[in-house]
Amino acid sequence: MKIFDIPGFPNPLRIRIVLAEKSLASRIEFIKIDLPGAEHKQPAFLAINPTGTVPVLQLDDGTYISECTVITDYLDNLDGNPTLTGTTLKEKAIIHMMQKRAESELADPVGIYFHHSTPGLGAGLQPYKSPEWEGRIEWGNRQRDKAVAGMKYFDQVLRSQPYVAGEQFSMADITVYAGLVFAGFASLAIPQACTALLAWQAKVQERPSVKNPA
Amino acid sequence: MKIFDIPGFPNPLRIRIVLAEKSLASRIEFIKIDLPGAEHKQPAFLAINPTGTVPVLQLDDGTYISECTVITDYLDNLDGNPTLTGTTLKEKAIIHMMQKRAESELADPVGIYFHHSTPGLGAGLQPYKSPEWEGRIEWGNRQRDKAVAGMKYFDQVLRSQPYVAGEQFSMADITVYAGLVFAGFASLAIPQACTALLAWQAKVQERPSVKNPA
Repeated sequence: MKIFDIPGFPNPLRIRIVLAEKSLASRIEFIKIDLPGAEHKQPAFLAINPTGTVPVLQLDDGTYISECTVITDYLDNLDGNPTLTGTTLKEKAIIHMMQKRAESELADPVGIYFHHSTPGLGAGLQPYKSPEWEGRIEWGNRQRDKAVAGMKYFDQVLRSQPYVAGEQFSMADITVYAGLVFAGFASLAIPQACTALLAWQAKVQERPSVKNPA
Repeated sequence: MKIFDIPGFPNPLRIRIVLAEKSLASRIEFIKIDLPGAEHKQPAFLAINPTGTVPVLQLDDGTYISECTVITDYLDNLDGNPTLTGTTLKEKAIIHMMQKRAESELADPVGIYFHHSTPGLGAGLQPYKSPEWEGRIEWGNRQRDKAVAGMKYFDQVLRSQPYVAGEQFSMADITVYAGLVFAGFASLAIPQACTALLAWQAKVQERPSVKNPA
């Protein structure tokens, strides 16, 4: 299998943690995409993934699979022993619901803030992410506020359970973690009052897959 | 099981089509949420779903499950015979990838356009959806253009295969269909050049679950 991505960026990080969790790194050939140079917005890459996002997984039969949640589900179930995405219908539902919340309430708004209200990844990518328009800074700032509200939401969740989707570490933890890494890039700090979220972050940082992603 | 929703709205429609496809309507008690009155943005509903969206599925043990894709996966697999979300790992991956594209490239931008650049659902909901800010109309119009580009993308997809995710009808078709219904609410027409999308829409409209959703 191949993965088209770039090391160190938030969504690629999510899948590289998954690969470490599942001991799959040796089965993957990584192909680096020049994100600051907007390679993922050019026709050659858009033929692979029309939405112009990384990472993309290419299966051995040539099929391209995009979207982190979809790639995670695929990789987690390859060995018939899912450890990150749930086993019962109810577990799967809760983990996928919290995964979506990690995106919609944290990672996605951080990304919008980063690209609209800060210099983002620089001039090469900016025309694709946030062309000049009247309300872009205000729009980004509203998303910054949403992201901070998301941090407070996950803090509340983690006051009554050890992980984002319940008793077990799951892909939803990986997504919240990567969202906070992205927030760090954007100089967006976790409020000090979010003690449960900060303690959870410190715990997750010690996990082998997070210390040494693929 | 209970579903909190309101008939006739795009995301509720998605799940009501799923219920008809799976012959599950008789097992559901529907609880109507006053969307134009912003009931889903008040504390009582936010305790059920912190993201403030409908529909929400309540399982018989009391657990609340939000997000259409998650609810669809749950309902489709209840009888051990999934017909809308795939059976093999690769099928599941392709269907879920196209489902996400149906949201990100069509349904979501139509919703942003509707709430930001048109009167939306009226004064009761507007403060939660699009409070007054400088660039709201332009932001909505940019999303309108993204939605039209999404229509052209799905038109291209449907030129080489009968359904959105391949040879079989799937939840991705339901989501594109509901996205087009939403576009209709917002007076956003499918470009006449999208002949494959228009032909697919006419075919899907004849499906019993779409003619008579739960």
